[in-house]
Amino acid sequence: NNLQKHIQFIRRAIEKKADLIVFPELSMTGYPPRDFLEFKDFVEKANQTLEKLLPFSNKIGIITGVPSINPVPEGKDLFNSAVFLHAGKEIYRQHKTLLPTYDIFDEYRYFEPAKEWKPVTFKGKKIALSICEDIWNLGNENPLYTVNPLDFQMKQNPDLIINISASPFDYTHPEERLKVIRANVKAYNKPLIYVNHTGAHTDLIFDGASMVVNSQGDILVKAKSFEEDLIVFDTEDLNQPVPNKQDDFNTMEMIYQALVLGIRDYFGKIGLKKAIVGLSGGLDSAVVTVLAVHALGKENVRVLMMPSLFSSEHSVTDAKQLAENLGIQYNIVSISGPYEKILEELRPLSLGKNISVAEENIQARIRMIYLMAVSNKYGNILLNTSNKSELAVGYGTLYGDMAGGLSVIGDLYKTQVYELARYINEKFNHVIPQNILIKPPSAELRPGQKDTDSLPPYEILDPVLKKYIEERKGPEEIIGEGFDKYLVHRVLKMVNRNEFKRYQTPPILRVSPKAFGMGRRMPIVAKYLE
Amino acid sequence: NNLQKHIQFIRRAIEKKADLIVFPELSMTGYPPRDFLEFKDFVEKANQTLEKLLPFSNKIGIITGVPSINPVPEGKDLFNSAVFLHAGKEIYRQHKTLLPTYDIFDEYRYFEPAKEWKPVTFKGKKIALSICEDIWNLGNENPLYTVNPLDFQMKQNPDLIINISASPFDYTHPEERLKVIRANVKAYNKPLIYVNHTGAHTDLIFDGASMVVNSQGDILVKAKSFEEDLIVFDTEDLNQPVPNKQDDFNTMEMIYQALVLGIRDYFGKIGLKKAIVGLSGGLDSAVVTVLAVHALGKENVRVLMMPSLFSSEHSVTDAKQLAENLGIQYNIVSISGPYEKILEELRPLSLGKNISVAEENIQARIRMIYLMAVSNKYGNILLNTSNKSELAVGYGTLYGDMAGGLSVIGDLYKTQVYELARYINEKFNHVIPQNILIKPPSAELRPGQKDTDSLPPYEILDPVLKKYIEERKGPEEIIGEGFDKYLVHRVLKMVNRNEFKRYQTPPILRVSPKAFGMGRRMPIVAKYLE
Repeated sequence: NNLQKHIQFIRRAIEKKADLIVFPELSMTGYPPRDFLEFKDFVEKANQTLEKLLPFSNKIGIITGVPSINPVPEGKDLFNSAVFLHAGKEIYRQHKTLLPTYDIFDEYRYFEPAKEWKPVTFKGKKIALSICEDIWNLGNENPLYTVNPLDFQMKQNPDLIINISASPFDYTHPEERLKVIRANVKAYNKPLIYVNHTGAHTDLIFDGASMVVNSQGDILVKAKSFEEDLIVFDTEDLNQPVPNKQDDFNTMEMIYQALVLGIRDYFGKIGLKKAIVGLSGGLDSAVVTVLAVHALGKENVRVLMMPSLFSSEHSVTDAKQLAENLGIQYNIVSISGPYEKILEELRPLSLGKNISVAEENIQARIRMIYLMAVSNKYGNILLNTSNKSELAVGYGTLYGDMAGGLSVIGDLYKTQVYELARYINEKFNHVIPQNILIKPPSAELRPGQKDTDSLPPYEILDPVLKKYIEERKGPEEIIGEGFDKYLVHRVLKMVNRNEFKRYQTPPILRVSPKAFGMGRRMPIVAKYLE
Repeated sequence: NNLQKHIQFIRRAIEKKADLIVFPELSMTGYPPRDFLEFKDFVEKANQTLEKLLPFSNKIGIITGVPSINPVPEGKDLFNSAVFLHAGKEIYRQHKTLLPTYDIFDEYRYFEPAKEWKPVTFKGKKIALSICEDIWNLGNENPLYTVNPLDFQMKQNPDLIINISASPFDYTHPEERLKVIRANVKAYNKPLIYVNHTGAHTDLIFDGASMVVNSQGDILVKAKSFEEDLIVFDTEDLNQPVPNKQDDFNTMEMIYQALVLGIRDYFGKIGLKKAIVGLSGGLDSAVVTVLAVHALGKENVRVLMMPSLFSSEHSVTDAKQLAENLGIQYNIVSISGPYEKILEELRPLSLGKNISVAEENIQARIRMIYLMAVSNKYGNILLNTSNKSELAVGYGTLYGDMAGGLSVIGDLYKTQVYELARYINEKFNHVIPQNILIKPPSAELRPGQKDTDSLPPYEILDPVLKKYIEERKGPEEIIGEGFDKYLVHRVLKMVNRNEFKRYQTPPILRVSPKAFGMGRRMPIVAKYLE
C-alpha cells in the first residue's frame, strides 16, 4: 500500500513538472512501525520495496524514509534514514541523529544515532537532510539532547534544509511545531522545507500541514491539515519575503478534525466499515456517535439504547432524538431481564441484596455483552465512549462501559467534551439535542444517581487532573496553586489507584500532549502518594 | 516501605559486623518506577528518603540506588545512580552508562548516560561501581552499545567491581546472567560482587540470586533465588579459588517459583489478599488455581464453576475434585438462565439463531460477570487463566475469559502449561486430577467443541509461535526450517490480527525472554505479512 501511494504521488509530481518530491519520515513502513523493526524480514522487505522506486527516480528526485541496517555489530541494529534517489540510483542516506524516546516515542529502542552528516547537491542546490526530532532540540530551555545535528551540517553551508517528519498531532502541537521551525530557520538563517506524515495510526493522529518556511520564519506555502496533499513549490522563491499572516489555531476545530480522521483511518486500516455505539442519552456517547457518523457515514453507524430500571425517561427520548437527527439505525434493548436473572443465579453468593458497586457493574457489563454480540455478529467495531476525567479517576466499569475497539474521546476531559459538543452544535445545525448538553451527568446505575455523588464537579476536577497528568506536578505544587488540600490528595490517589483499569482500556485517540496509553507508562503496584 | 526495608537490612548487617552493605539498583524507588520519574516531586522524595540513611552510614558503608537530577539543562533530566554513603555523608554517586531500551526496558526515556567514572576507595579497597546493564555489553556477538564503561574504569586499577542490578527473571536469564558475569571477571581479571533485585513488580519478576564471583569466574557465595536474602562475605576471600560446581538450572522449578512469587507480590503490593478463579475443569484454570493457593494460602482462594449447556459431565467433577484436593471454597453457578435471557432480548437483532462466535462469546462473558461480581463484592482479584498460545492466536473472548487483574500463565505456551502441571503433580502429590491432564483441550462453548477444530495441535503451533514471537523470525525463515508453508502463514497472520485483543489483556507475569505486554510493542493496524 505504501509503495502504491508513493507511486501515485510521484506520478502526480512528474505531471506537475516537479524536480524533486519529498515524502515524510519512514514513509516506506508507516510510523511508528514499533517492534516490527525487530524483524530482519520486515526491514529487508521495506528496503526491497524502496528499490521499486528507483526507476521513477530517472524522472524526478525522490526523498523518502526507510529503516536502514547498521553495518557495524556494535550499537543498535538500525538507523532511521532519509534516502535520496536520483537517476535510477540511491545517491545518499542521511541517518537521524536525535532519537525521541519519551511520551509515545521509543526510537532509541531500535535506532543508533547518526554520527555523520553530508549535504546532497541536487540541480545546483546544496541540501541539508534532517529527520523530524533533529530540528527539535532548538527553541526550548531544557533541551533533551546535548547536540544539534544542524550545527554540524551548517559547516557545509547548505542552501536549504529539508526535514522529513512523523510528528503526531496534539492540540498544542501545530503551534509548537511552527515555533520550532522558526527557531531553526532563524538560528541557521536558511529556508526549511518541512514534510510531515498525515493520517491516523491507531491512537496516533498525524496532521500533515507540511510547509515551506523562508529564513525569516514566514510560511511560503502550507499543505492541508488532516488530509494528504501534494503542493508544488519553486525553490527559486525560497527566500522571498511574504506579508505577515496571523497564525490561526482553533483548538476545538483541530480536535474535531483529528478525531474524525482518527476514527476513519482506524476503520480503513483495519479493513472494516461499520461502528456500533451504546447510546445512553448522555453527553459522551452523543458526541462519539456524531463523530462516528461524520467519519464513517450514517449508513455505517448503528446504536443500541439499553435502559435499565434506573434510567430516566429522558435518557431514551434524548438518545432517540439524536439518532433521528443523524438518520442512523437504532435498537432499544432492555437489560432488566438478564440483570434479574443474573442476580437470581448469584443470590446463593449473597449478591443482589442491595445496589452496591458489584450490582452497578453487572448492568454496565450486560450492556457490553449486547454491544459485543452485535459487534461479533455483524462486524461493527464497538466505539468506546469513556472520557479522560472518568478514565483518570476510575469512574467506569472495566469490561462494561470501558470496553471497545477504539476510545474516541478518552483524551478529552469532561469539560472539553462539553466544549466539543458546543463546537459541533454550532457547526452542524444543533444535531445534539440541547437537553443532552444541559442535564447533569449521571451513570444511571442506581436510583437518582449523579456523577457528583462520587466525584468533585468537573470544573474543579479537570484542572487538578490536568496539572497532575499533563503537567506532572506533585501534590504540594498543585495545592500551592490554590486547590483544596484534601481534594488534591483524594484525586491524585484515585488516579494512581486506577492504573490497573487503564491498563486494559482500548487504544485512545491522542489529541493532548499527554494521553493515557503508550505515552504514559505507570506502575500498577507502586505506592507514590499513598 | 523501601526505607524501612533498607533500615532493617542495615541493622542486620551491622549486627553481623559487616563493613559495607550493598542494595540493588534504584532500591530507594523500586524498579521500574516508570513515568513517576517524570515527576520532580517523586525524584525529590526519593532523594529525601535516601538522606534518612545517612545516620546509619556512621556504622556501616552503604551502597544503594536512586535517581539523580542532572544539573545540566542539556540532555535528559535524570541519571540512574549508585550512591555510596559513609561516615554520615554521601561520598560518591556513580551514574549508569548503558541504558537498556529494549523489551521491557525504557531507561533512555528518563536517563542521561554517565560520562565520568571514578573509583571509590573504602577501607583500603578500590571499588569500581557499576549498574546493571553496564556489564551486559560483553560476551555477545552483537553488542547493543559502542562502549563498555568498565574499559574506562579499569584504567584506575580497582580491586573489585560491585554491580547493582534490577535484572528481571526469565527462564533463560539466570544462566545468561552468569555467562555475562563470567565474561566480565575474565575480561578484566577482577572479582565481582553482583547484587540483584528480588520480588515481583506487577508483570516483572526479579529473582535475586545475588552472588560474589572471583576473577576466575567461580561463584564464591550465592544468595537465595526468588527470596530476599542477606549474605555476609569477607572480601579477603575474594580471590580464593573454589572447587568447580555444576551450575544447575531447572526450568520448570524456576517458572513455578517465579509465578508463585509473582502472584504473592502482586497481591501484597496492591494490598489485597484474596483471589478468585473460574475453574472450568480444563488444564489452564487448574494450574492457575494451584499456583494461587501456593502463593496466597487456601483460605484466600475461591473458585466458581460455571457450566454451560455444552459443558461435559467431567468438567464439573474434575473441577470439584481439584477444589477438594486443595481444600478451597467453590460454588457452582449455571450460566444457562442468563444466556437464554440475553438471547431472548437480542432476538429482534437476529442473534441466537445458531451458535456462532457471537453466541459463544456471550457465554464466556456471562462467566466474567459472575467472577467480577464476586470480585467487586468481596475484594477477590480475578486471576486470568489464558495461556500464551491462545493469546497469540486470539483464541479467547475479550471481556470474557481474557478478563482478570493479573494473567498468571499468559507467558507459557500450552505445551509448557502441561509441563508445569506435570512438575506440580510430581512435587505436590498429584494435586491436579489426572483426567485434567489427559483430556483434549476444549472451550466447551458449542457441542463437542475441541481446540483442534480451530487451531493446529499445540505440539505444532507452539514451536511456530516461539520462532515468530521469541526469535522474531519471518515466514520464509520459519518455513525454511521445515514447517508447512500454509500453516506458517496462517499462524503468523492470526498473531498479527489479534494484536487488538492483546492490547486489552491484564498484565502478564513475565517468565520468557519475550512476553506479551510492555516488552512487545506492536502496531494494531499494520499490514506486515497480510
